[in-house]
Amino acid sequence: MKVLFVAGDPKPERWTVPIKELLPEAEVHVWDANGPAVDADYAIVWQPPEQLFEREKKLKAVFNLGAGIDGLLAVPNLPPQLPIVRLEDAGMSAQMAEYVLHQLLEASRGMETYREQQRQGIWKIHRPIKRSEWPVGVMGLGHIGKRVARTLAGLDYRVNGWARSKHDLEGVSTFSGTENLPDFLQSTRVLVNTLPLTDETRDILNQQHLSQLMPNAVVINVGRGEHLVEEDLIKAIEDGHVARASLDVFRQEPLPADHPFWQRPEITITPHISARTLRDATLEQITGKIQAHHNGQPISGIVDPSRGY
Amino acid sequence: MKVLFVAGDPKPERWTVPIKELLPEAEVHVWDANGPAVDADYAIVWQPPEQLFEREKKLKAVFNLGAGIDGLLAVPNLPPQLPIVRLEDAGMSAQMAEYVLHQLLEASRGMETYREQQRQGIWKIHRPIKRSEWPVGVMGLGHIGKRVARTLAGLDYRVNGWARSKHDLEGVSTFSGTENLPDFLQSTRVLVNTLPLTDETRDILNQQHLSQLMPNAVVINVGRGEHLVEEDLIKAIEDGHVARASLDVFRQEPLPADHPFWQRPEITITPHISARTLRDATLEQITGKIQAHHNGQPISGIVDPSRGY
Repeated sequence: MKVLFVAGDPKPERWTVPIKELLPEAEVHVWDANGPAVDADYAIVWQPPEQLFEREKKLKAVFNLGAGIDGLLAVPNLPPQLPIVRLEDAGMSAQMAEYVLHQLLEASRGMETYREQQRQGIWKIHRPIKRSEWPVGVMGLGHIGKRVARTLAGLDYRVNGWARSKHDLEGVSTFSGTENLPDFLQSTRVLVNTLPLTDETRDILNQQHLSQLMPNAVVINVGRGEHLVEEDLIKAIEDGHVARASLDVFRQEPLPADHPFWQRPEITITPHISARTLRDATLEQITGKIQAHHNGQPISGIVDPSRGY
Repeated sequence: MKVLFVAGDPKPERWTVPIKELLPEAEVHVWDANGPAVDADYAIVWQPPEQLFEREKKLKAVFNLGAGIDGLLAVPNLPPQLPIVRLEDAGMSAQMAEYVLHQLLEASRGMETYREQQRQGIWKIHRPIKRSEWPVGVMGLGHIGKRVARTLAGLDYRVNGWARSKHDLEGVSTFSGTENLPDFLQSTRVLVNTLPLTDETRDILNQQHLSQLMPNAVVINVGRGEHLVEEDLIKAIEDGHVARASLDVFRQEPLPADHPFWQRPEITITPHISARTLRDATLEQITGKIQAHHNGQPISGIVDPSRGY
């Protein structure tokens, strides 16, 4: 079995050494833009170049080094029948859940106010939070969205969940489909986006939808930058309907130095760090699936291109 | 039935009006330092004056408006046989759990670094956290400690728990008694204190114990200020063994303006806000217990004075 590693890591041996350990019988190659075909059976990729699919014609499956496969599906010559396998969780959902909770507390419990008070040496207690005033709505109920929703529900927040299809989640009020989106938004103050990026979800965080949130809304985007219409968020903040936003993803990354988001006190920017791919967990999952596929066993996480995730 | 409300709230009607609604048959009084005895059956108190127990001789039980009853037990003429009932949870454990998680992320995921980067317009990704490097140890496994431990374990942290007596908690390695405290400390990097304040636990966060924590330790104190030997924490920070501390409680509150904690970048100060008593949940619990006691039914949360909690 031949495995080809295709990602822009300057130290690919950080990946290929453990892959060899986990798949002792595999021949492991690193993508070389100028090299010959290696006739790989499996490719492990992150934003691969088009040449990959021109050159490697014997691929049985492609394993994506992340949960979001929008980058991979955008490669124009991706063979339509080639199974694409996305990363499932691999330590990411817990990271996202804690990141979201952290950002929620920044808003709901005014943690910046307490930091500012410390800088000034001021001891002042503010009104306690009432959880009933901070209903959270999680868009997207995949591995990540579910974990976020469960974590917040476990801390006694009222949690709504919305997804394209029906889901049942204990302690969470679930909504599905475009027709129920208004109900979901109108009962949500803190909107958390964990959706996959597809043609249907692109620009979903727009003026029309943001304006349906409860007053003094908070937007937490840990999905993709392309979910958010950036000018609409600025407008919603300026007209006072959205009080705060925590953004981890952007239409252009790194966020350009002259982008208006940087200077807005209502916006918290983090550089796409809400959940990081953890090498150990990722490689354990992917090599386990490669071995299973090689043995003719079924594997989970195969992308449905018609849905886009 | 007569109920006496004894707490320094400038607007006691915020409490007495709902108490009357919840206990329609009760006669509800507000403590008057200069008034006569009202022969109350039950007192609802927060840090009551000595005169309460001189004057009110018919009390059947005293209900504390908080989980920590160290202030009440310190009243010198507290009748030894009078049942003392502490507040059980009433919305506090979820607040503590989220506060602790927030402070943990400030340390483990370097959230201040990202805020500083935003102020400077810098997009820079730092090394992701490995949960294996951040084992948490929760001291005290009452309602609050358990909730903290469960929340962190639910987010895939390694969690140790320590208490005076044995506890069994799913997903948490538990330790009990003084003899196992060293093992607990040595396998803990992030120490979270939720202990009750007793003669045994006073000054427990001292040089001897802090020095046994794993290197680059983090101390999160949401118990009582008297648990922490403040000079020992400063020394542990100065010698580099403790990297950060988040303190919500202090030996003297408000923290004096000239206290060295204010200016230390390694110390985060919040003004005793990690968990606030929520009036609705508190009154529902206390009035429910008063009614039950009045009806001769058993109630939970009665303090064992020999343990001190």
